[in-house]
Formats: sequence, structure tokens, C-alpha cells
Amino acid sequence: MSSEKRDDAVDHRIDAEDDTVHSAWDNGLEPVRTIEPGDVVRASCRDATNGQLDPDSTAADVPDLDIDPVHALTGPIAVDGARPGDVLQVELLDVEHEGWGYTAVLPGAMDLGILADEFPEPALHVWDLDGDVGRFVNGIEVPLNPFPGIVGVAPAADGAHSTFPPRSVGGNMDVKHLTAGSTLYLPVAVADALLSIGDCHAAQGDGEVCGTGIEAPMTVTFRVDVRSDLSIEQPQFETAGPFTPTGRDEQMYGTTGIADDMMEAARLAVRHMVDHLHDERGLRRSEAYILCSAAVDLKISEAVNAPNWVVSAYLPERIFPQERRRPTASE
Amino acid sequence: MSSEKRDDAVDHRIDAEDDTVHSAWDNGLEPVRTIEPGDVVRASCRDATNGQLDPDSTAADVPDLDIDPVHALTGPIAVDGARPGDVLQVELLDVEHEGWGYTAVLPGAMDLGILADEFPEPALHVWDLDGDVGRFVNGIEVPLNPFPGIVGVAPAADGAHSTFPPRSVGGNMDVKHLTAGSTLYLPVAVADALLSIGDCHAAQGDGEVCGTGIEAPMTVTFRVDVRSDLSIEQPQFETAGPFTPTGRDEQMYGTTGIADDMMEAARLAVRHMVDHLHDERGLRRSEAYILCSAAVDLKISEAVNAPNWVVSAYLPERIFPQERRRPTASE
Repeated sequence: MSSEKRDDAVDHRIDAEDDTVHSAWDNGLEPVRTIEPGDVVRASCRDATNGQLDPDSTAADVPDLDIDPVHALTGPIAVDGARPGDVLQVELLDVEHEGWGYTAVLPGAMDLGILADEFPEPALHVWDLDGDVGRFVNGIEVPLNPFPGIVGVAPAADGAHSTFPPRSVGGNMDVKHLTAGSTLYLPVAVADALLSIGDCHAAQGDGEVCGTGIEAPMTVTFRVDVRSDLSIEQPQFETAGPFTPTGRDEQMYGTTGIADDMMEAARLAVRHMVDHLHDERGLRRSEAYILCSAAVDLKISEAVNAPNWVVSAYLPERIFPQERRRPTASE
Repeated sequence: MSSEKRDDAVDHRIDAEDDTVHSAWDNGLEPVRTIEPGDVVRASCRDATNGQLDPDSTAADVPDLDIDPVHALTGPIAVDGARPGDVLQVELLDVEHEGWGYTAVLPGAMDLGILADEFPEPALHVWDLDGDVGRFVNGIEVPLNPFPGIVGVAPAADGAHSTFPPRSVGGNMDVKHLTAGSTLYLPVAVADALLSIGDCHAAQGDGEVCGTGIEAPMTVTFRVDVRSDLSIEQPQFETAGPFTPTGRDEQMYGTTGIADDMMEAARLAVRHMVDHLHDERGLRRSEAYILCSAAVDLKISEAVNAPNWVVSAYLPERIFPQERRRPTASE
């Protein structure tokens, strides 16, 4: 879909302002807009912290972050006629960053991260987002595949609910493949659905292991429809990826985590990848952890060989400025 | 590497015979061969059941399976000079199937599968493996990417150990990306390493959710080396995938599992995919479960948004005989 056609088709523009942004799920919130099924919305989204960080921020700013405004979501948007039991279809047409983003290690109040106990110090990398790549340290460039980390509808239960955990109505799922061209299906729990969107990431590894992707303010364009012919219990989606940073097979370095608990297996895989990036690629451990969160994918290799499960972490080698594979003995 | 060059380079051929196959990890087993670092081995591997199933088998044969010969591994191979603390480097040069394979739902003695409690009946699909594709029901064709499900070295602890769980020395990891061209690194635990290989799969989804991939007898060619310059705690690897069935971006249908336990999230994602394949693609539930195990990938979308984690299951739509996406409201 061309940008021109997209512009023509936009039915609603919603700018992220103090009165169009919220930071809790609550089916009692007043909608910022009511739309019709089939309408296209272009919404700007603040970064997850609601502007508490900017391109000049440093790790010293991280401990002062206020958790209350997180995640700053744009919405809720009422979808006329959506009823509990329906499915809200959200076609993601375009996701545009603004040239910068950040990845943070956030100990303390938020206490995020799969290895939180091993990384008690705050850390921050501010990324220069240059078109399709984000620039890291040491010449490392991470391909960008922007997506909204949070897309969800209001829960059935009254009152305010944290935006941190995802729920059956969606929310903070961080499914990195919800890129432009993808379609998300969400189970509707309340009248008019009350859709909100935000927490955009310019790139992220499956797992978002340090707790943040490449967090960035963005503008998301999407078409919303109501599907009364479908019934789902939790979100489903269609996507063409990309499933590697470039959408093509490319050399990956893999570490395994083998343990009798799936989360512990994930932790081990990440710890081994941090070790690899530190020992073989010369990164500081906090840099390695941040890079894992932005560019390393967690796959469940096997979930059936009791009592031990395997989670593998995949590092795309092409993000490094030159090919520096371990030499094999035969080379 | 051409087949001709590979043939020229083979230093050892090991056929899977009753006296070269074993079904327990045991550092006291007599090696079937001693090789030198740098040697290339071509080893044939029986299917995991040690020939208890064949192309004419049906689901009625599944309850009679004897668990004792599982998994029939070829080896152990002594690698001269390997010492505890070293790393065994296994370059997978070629993995060849023999034209058939099977995927089984195995209740009872083996009690395998992420949804074992929901699938109490045995089921079996025998696949016709035609070059690069395996043929399923309803015209479904699964691209083949053969790999050994088990590659491991003997554990330090004396005695016989089950081949079912993977361990820090490798074994039943079922990392589906250990295809030809990949390199596996294994931590050596005993003198001469004692390498074994088997449990080959012609294709498998990340997760191997019903407990079996496309199980098949195969011949694996690999070069073995000893790396005293490396130190790892659990297996690591290098691979170029493929990371989708074709190694290119292609449309996937995704289901999520959202739960406060990672394994339960994986179960939910698979259950939702079984529902999808049953409701939208017309498969029987046991067929859907088998297809998930052979062709659906489990990714950890997020492991940090406490208390709920997201596992997503990815179904490549191109395995179906024609494009039958859900029509969108705009079409």
C-alpha cells in the first residue's frame, strides 16, 4: 500500500496528547474517539515512559524514572457496535519511527528483565535510528522492524489494571512480528471494544529479555474491523515477519539453556549469550544484555523431553561490522 | 561442499548395526570407533524406536512400542585426546533421509507431548518424503530440513542414563536448526568425549510439541574436532537455518498463549493452534497436533512482563495446497 493511498484512506488522526494518552487498562475510561468498523486510524504514540527519556538521556536518568505514566497508551478508541465475544481485527498498515529510541536496563521500581538479579545497575543505550537500521556500540547495526509492543482492548473486569502484564484481551504482548502488513485478532470483552495502542519498538528480540526493546515514539496507521464470525480465547495474528532481521536466512550464533523449568532454560540461554557477546565480541555485560533484548531471539527448541526443556537464543551475526565467526579448525 | 568432495573426505563409515547402536548414555560403553580430531565420519542412524515402525505401520502399532530401545543412537565414538573441559566441535556436513518417516502421538509408557492429557489416543502419520517435501493429509506439504535430534557426549556421572532428557552435555536437544552446514559445540565431560548421534528428524517445529518430529532413519556426515581454546557450560551452535520452512519470509498464522507459567503459555499457544487447524483448516485434532509437531514453531514473544508471559506458535501458510487465508473485511 502506497503512502499516498494510505494518506487518502485515513479516517481519523489521533495525536498523543495528555488527554488522549492513558497508563492503565480501565473499561470506564472515556473514549478519545468513536470509529466505525472499517475505519483507518493514524495515531501517534509516545514512548512507553511518556516522554521521561529523550535523545540526550543517560543511564543516570534511569533511576529517576516514574513508573506511574508507564505505558503511555494512545486511546481508548471506541469501535461502534463491537460486542463482547466478537473479535476485533486490527490491520497494521504503517509503523513509523522518529529517528531515535532507547533500550534500558531498569532495576528498582520496575525491576524488569529475565536476568534482573544479575544486572542491578541501571543502563541505557540511546539508538540513532537511521532509516532501516539502529546504531549500537562498536559499529554494530541492528535492522529495524518497527511494531507496537502493546495493542489491546479493555478487560471485562472493572477498575484500573496495570499495563505491564498482557492478558487474554491482548496488551503488552511484545509480539515482534506485528509489523506493518500484519493483522492482529483480539477477543472483545466490553461494548465498543475500547482499543488502545502504544509501547512501540523499532526492533526487539523474541523475549525482550532486558525488559525493553528499542523503545521509541512512533506513528501507527491501522484499519479496525469487527469480526462477529470469529471466536478466539486469546490473541491471534497473521504476519509475514520478517522472521530474521533481513527476512532471509543468515548465519546465527546459538546458545542453549537446558533446565527442568522453561523460564530457567530461557534465563540460561540468555546468560550464555551474554557470556558469548562479552567473551567473543568484546561487549560489556550490560551492553550484551541490551543487545540481546534488541536483537536476539528466544525459541523453544523442545518442550517434550521431560524433565528437561531446551530454549535456544539466536544472535544474527550480520549485525556486526565484519564477519568475525569463530575460526573452525579446518580454516 | 559437493557430495564428491564429501565422499573423498570421509575417514570413517559407521553403519547402524546391533553392535554399533545403544539406547542409554553411559560413559562405560565400549567405543565403536576411535577417531582423530579433524576426521570426517559418515554414520547411518536408525529411527528412534530402533526399527519398531516401518512405512506400513499404523496407529494400531503404537501401543505395542517397546520403550527400551529408544533412542537408538549410533556410537559412542571416541575422539582421541578430548579431555573434560574441552569443547567438541561437530560440523554437520550432510543429513540424508531414506524416503519415509513418521510422526506419532505416544500416550502410555512414553507419555510424550505438551498436550499429553488432551490426546490419550495413539496416532500415527507415515510421511512420504519426496526430496525436499514431506506429504501430509489434505494435500499439505511440509518442506524438509533434516537434522539429528540427538547429538551428545557421555555424561561425567557413571552408570546408564535415559536418552530422553537433554543435559548440559547435549543429547536430545531437538534443535531443529542443526541442519547440514551447521556447527555444534558440546562441553566434553569424559576422556575421549564419547560422541553419539541419532533420533533424526526430516522436519520439526520448534517445540516438537506432540513428542515426535518427522522421525526417520538417516545417514549423517560430520567432521569432529577438539577445541581446547573454548569453554562452555551447555551446548552452543552456529547455523544459517533455515528459519522459515523455505528460508524466506512467508505468511504465518500465529496463535498466542498468555499465562503466568511459561510451559502453560506454550501449551495454550499449541492448543489454540490445534483449534485453528481444526476449525479453519478442517483437520482432525490429532492430525492438527501432529502437524504442529512437524511444522509449527514456538517462540517466546516476551519473558519479562510479569506476571504473564507470551509464547506464540507460528504456522507457515504455504504448506497448504492453496492460499486460503481468512478473508479480511476489506477484501
